[in-house]
Amino acid sequence: MITHLPLCSIKNPQKVLVIGGGDGGVLREVARHKSVKQIDICEIDQMVIDVAKKFFPHIAVGFDDPRVKLFVGDGAQFLKGVPDGFYDAVIVDSSDPIGPAKQLFETPFFESLARVLCPGGVVCTQAESLWLHMHIIKDIFTSCKKTFKGSVNYAWTSVPSYPSGIIGFMLCSTEGPPVNFHEPINPIEKAVTDMNCRPLKFYNSEMHSAAFCLPQFAREALDL
Amino acid sequence: MITHLPLCSIKNPQKVLVIGGGDGGVLREVARHKSVKQIDICEIDQMVIDVAKKFFPHIAVGFDDPRVKLFVGDGAQFLKGVPDGFYDAVIVDSSDPIGPAKQLFETPFFESLARVLCPGGVVCTQAESLWLHMHIIKDIFTSCKKTFKGSVNYAWTSVPSYPSGIIGFMLCSTEGPPVNFHEPINPIEKAVTDMNCRPLKFYNSEMHSAAFCLPQFAREALDL
Repeated sequence: MITHLPLCSIKNPQKVLVIGGGDGGVLREVARHKSVKQIDICEIDQMVIDVAKKFFPHIAVGFDDPRVKLFVGDGAQFLKGVPDGFYDAVIVDSSDPIGPAKQLFETPFFESLARVLCPGGVVCTQAESLWLHMHIIKDIFTSCKKTFKGSVNYAWTSVPSYPSGIIGFMLCSTEGPPVNFHEPINPIEKAVTDMNCRPLKFYNSEMHSAAFCLPQFAREALDL
Repeated sequence: MITHLPLCSIKNPQKVLVIGGGDGGVLREVARHKSVKQIDICEIDQMVIDVAKKFFPHIAVGFDDPRVKLFVGDGAQFLKGVPDGFYDAVIVDSSDPIGPAKQLFETPFFESLARVLCPGGVVCTQAESLWLHMHIIKDIFTSCKKTFKGSVNYAWTSVPSYPSGIIGFMLCSTEGPPVNFHEPINPIEKAVTDMNCRPLKFYNSEMHSAAFCLPQFAREALDL
């Protein structure tokens, strides 16, 4: 979901950056998108990559795609070296906002993300659980609303192994052509057929749209 | 969700039966519906009711509604005494299909449910987790498809305290006016305003429709 929610919402993603995501799973899913020509990943922890390659080869297989270029380092620092408007999509597959990933949930980081997006570009960042972290989600939402000139949307889905069984995503677009995240315009089902990939197990266009439907308490907390 | 998914899908629910649900939570939610004149509940275990009243009064408050009539006994037996076509809606808030609740997941029980529904009536039964019990869900789905002359639909939602963080529901309609469960025609938001109830925390019409969107593996398993 963290991959296809942003990439299926724009017509022709070509340059994609992944921040975090050292297990390779997001890379594997980005690689399903035929239009994508460049997949950069900046992961802070080499050991995450090594462990994934050793113990989770079916996930780490994402690193094998020839379009992938790996940078080991700090994502916020990495963005400083990226030219304005360079990426079509940035996916932030981070850990929780305590410890090393803290800055990935703060306004200066969101400002850097907005800067490196091309017009009509999109960002998807890991955005915690509605059941556990509504206060954090509110802060991220407020900060993103101030930073991104396009739209800011919260989506969520079921992940049984995560605390409270769900995880959320903040989907933001920059200035330029408006992006309606709720209706995928670049359905992955077609890409999967074209590229003869192994079939999707979870994501489909229906789940994409449903992910933006929020429980009443969340709609009220976010003033939606 | 187990209450509003069925009751918001029909225009004018009047007679409702709850099987199980001894904590009173389903009763509390049924009581929000102004059109409802009779709420029967058949719970097998008096101790569930007593414990809920003692320790969870904000849930057991459902028993206080004057429309509620309690029967302590076996749900399948109870149905044998119900005239054909008596109820507008039956909600089966059961435990898992191991032990005492086993028969509530089998064809003879579904046949009894179909028999006691009036034309255009609906049933909602607890139908396990997509992550853990796909084989059970398939069996229930197949059995309901054979039994109910209207439509049979699977829905699911997030409940962090349940195994795998989700729970599912099978929603079935009988012969008579067709029921489109995916689009609520009796929005509860209006009922809540009319009756001056305390506001809903989770359910809304958007969540209602989203509950019927299934992950790819589930669509394939159920041949949807």
